[in-house]
Amino acid sequence: MADASAVWRDVERIRSQAPLVHNITNYVAMALTANALLALGASPVMAHAPEEVDEMAALSAALVLNIGTLSPPWVTAMLRAGNAARRKGIPIVLDPVGAGATRYRTETARRLLRDLRPAVLRGNASEIRALATSEAGTKGVDSRHAPEAALEAARRLSSEFGAVVSVSGPVDLIVLGGSVVRTANGHPLMPRVTGLGCVASALTGAFAAVAASPLEAAAHAMAVMGIAGEMAGEGAAGPASFQTRFLDALYNLSEADISGRLKMGSA
Amino acid sequence: MADASAVWRDVERIRSQAPLVHNITNYVAMALTANALLALGASPVMAHAPEEVDEMAALSAALVLNIGTLSPPWVTAMLRAGNAARRKGIPIVLDPVGAGATRYRTETARRLLRDLRPAVLRGNASEIRALATSEAGTKGVDSRHAPEAALEAARRLSSEFGAVVSVSGPVDLIVLGGSVVRTANGHPLMPRVTGLGCVASALTGAFAAVAASPLEAAAHAMAVMGIAGEMAGEGAAGPASFQTRFLDALYNLSEADISGRLKMGSA
Amino acid sequence: MADASAVWRDVERIRSQAPLVHNITNYVAMALTANALLALGASPVMAHAPEEVDEMAALSAALVLNIGTLSPPWVTAMLRAGNAARRKGIPIVLDPVGAGATRYRTETARRLLRDLRPAVLRGNASEIRALATSEAGTKGVDSRHAPEAALEAARRLSSEFGAVVSVSGPVDLIVLGGSVVRTANGHPLMPRVTGLGCVASALTGAFAAVAASPLEAAAHAMAVMGIAGEMAGEGAAGPASFQTRFLDALYNLSEADISGRLKMGSA
Repeated sequence: MADASAVWRDVERIRSQAPLVHNITNYVAMALTANALLALGASPVMAHAPEEVDEMAALSAALVLNIGTLSPPWVTAMLRAGNAARRKGIPIVLDPVGAGATRYRTETARRLLRDLRPAVLRGNASEIRALATSEAGTKGVDSRHAPEAALEAARRLSSEFGAVVSVSGPVDLIVLGGSVVRTANGHPLMPRVTGLGCVASALTGAFAAVAASPLEAAAHAMAVMGIAGEMAGEGAAGPASFQTRFLDALYNLSEADISGRLKMGSA
Repeated sequence: MADASAVWRDVERIRSQAPLVHNITNYVAMALTANALLALGASPVMAHAPEEVDEMAALSAALVLNIGTLSPPWVTAMLRAGNAARRKGIPIVLDPVGAGATRYRTETARRLLRDLRPAVLRGNASEIRALATSEAGTKGVDSRHAPEAALEAARRLSSEFGAVVSVSGPVDLIVLGGSVVRTANGHPLMPRVTGLGCVASALTGAFAAVAASPLEAAAHAMAVMGIAGEMAGEGAAGPASFQTRFLDALYNLSEADISGRLKMGSA
Repeated sequence: MADASAVWRDVERIRSQAPLVHNITNYVAMALTANALLALGASPVMAHAPEEVDEMAALSAALVLNIGTLSPPWVTAMLRAGNAARRKGIPIVLDPVGAGATRYRTETARRLLRDLRPAVLRGNASEIRALATSEAGTKGVDSRHAPEAALEAARRLSSEFGAVVSVSGPVDLIVLGGSVVRTANGHPLMPRVTGLGCVASALTGAFAAVAASPLEAAAHAMAVMGIAGEMAGEGAAGPASFQTRFLDALYNLSEADISGRLKMGSA
């Protein structure tokens, strides 16, 4: 109950404040990410030129960095925007897409984590394990590990970097030091739509702009993702109609949808 | 009446001639832009390599430049393509996405305007005001100003650069020197779909390839955008189903849809 | 009958093995390509940094190269990934988008063909003719030639480079030396959706990861594209609802859909 009203309070804040969320993200998920932020009520901006990223980040209420289609100039832009955000106290969300698949991804994600100290690190179980250990084994950008298998890795990363670590899966784990929040909403079609993990990170950015803490921001974002996913799944004919219904559900999300569906618990 | 038949005449020309529209545009809106041009009946091409942009622009019936995710190599490509288009008398449409938000955007948009002398400059009220004055204040890529507030700025830019200035909003203003055409079709969900402003610029390019004048091209494109938006909004469950219905409406647009719905006037 | 069961066998293999398909493709079609691969049951990854492409290609079951929005750094990445794939015997599919439209496209496509010896070259009739001859004349990225007009060109390219040449159109031609397979499924709305040709190439990659031969891979991919297109076209209101229905149809494709609809023949 208390949880549902806190989630709803943050949704209302996003809708009334329309926080500007600056994304330096991958080509695949850009349009879906912008549409999801707009559907939720936030104001997305995508900008990656070194000539403007610090200025844009400083105007924003949150910065979301995503290495899905990384290359050296984009990593430079991420560092520059991230440093500008840090100087202004603007929360950063990092999505280490595909960490573990190649050395370049793993090392870049670790560098961004170390240098920028994001408020939230959000990935799937394989990525979080790859960042915490030296083991590789991500298969592309999919997760092969259940989130619970990443709990120890998430705890370690959270302690080392002081970040909330948000691990998505059938049950999401949101970890800060010794605390764990679990959210269990969602739908099996979600992994069949490209970029929904990236959307989760972007919405975490929108919530970070308004929430009481990074832990609440990460948990509320995953709850809203999962609830919109559940609503989208009811009546979807496949992954593409699911995606349409998901964005429409985000746009139409009501207090009753959240209070009637939320599965969130702390431990 | 006369207006509606002129709009329809240009739609039929696009459908029969399938003009090639060369876009150098942003990553977020590329797919939607190409799909909207195809739905209307035009032939889109996206190409940005310096090795080919002048050749591609010279093959085309219109060139659309959009700085949504600009960076120096892309600006170089825009200048190169624009100069090739100018040499062949091919109309250019410029969309100064986010002008006013950062100095780099404002300065780049001004440079493209000054060096390439586009036939049409199409933006929202904040962008047009930012280009005409030294005031900043765009919030991301959204508009904070009603179009009427940009009328004076549009007039000034139109006089200085000899361009049609097309300002989108609940009522669109299409300005050439002392003339103003207003179109008032549209739907409140339109600003909730990322890239619809970019689509407006691309369709302006398609109309510029066939219309009697840049002023008619800009006005007819905004009319068609707004009418398809109205049709899409009837029955849409949210912004994503709206987008699907918008593209389908562009594809199915009939003379009766235009004559029955068009809200266009000159002053 | 034999054909339909072979197509279905490969669909089932993709669904059970979820082969990783590495795409270095264009900005316009990236999201649709990833979604189509996911809908079919494959695991897409997009990565283009020179720092990681050889490592990523070596992890993959197929590599798909597409020059739709090419530029020199991306071509370098394609060569690097392609060489890594060749060393490991991983099949390569090449989509020469827009070959014939500009010299840069034609020359780049020829270079990739010559240096990387892809298992399958998949394009439309204009592109295949442009690669076989010195004649230009592609109109943007659309096809102006019927596939049959490209049969001789496809035979010549197949002989010279030892590749299967797959030419899409109302009737698709899949050519290896003197053999030709024709598939005749599809729907008139398919050319109105941007990137469906790119999707055909990506699905060819997924089939190449599991099929008995590159010839079967190319033919089965075109058959599945066409059958999903037919199913999508029944009830679509326009090109955008078609796209949604196409991805949903790929996801739901059954053995009965294939056996009841397949139009495939050899000559």
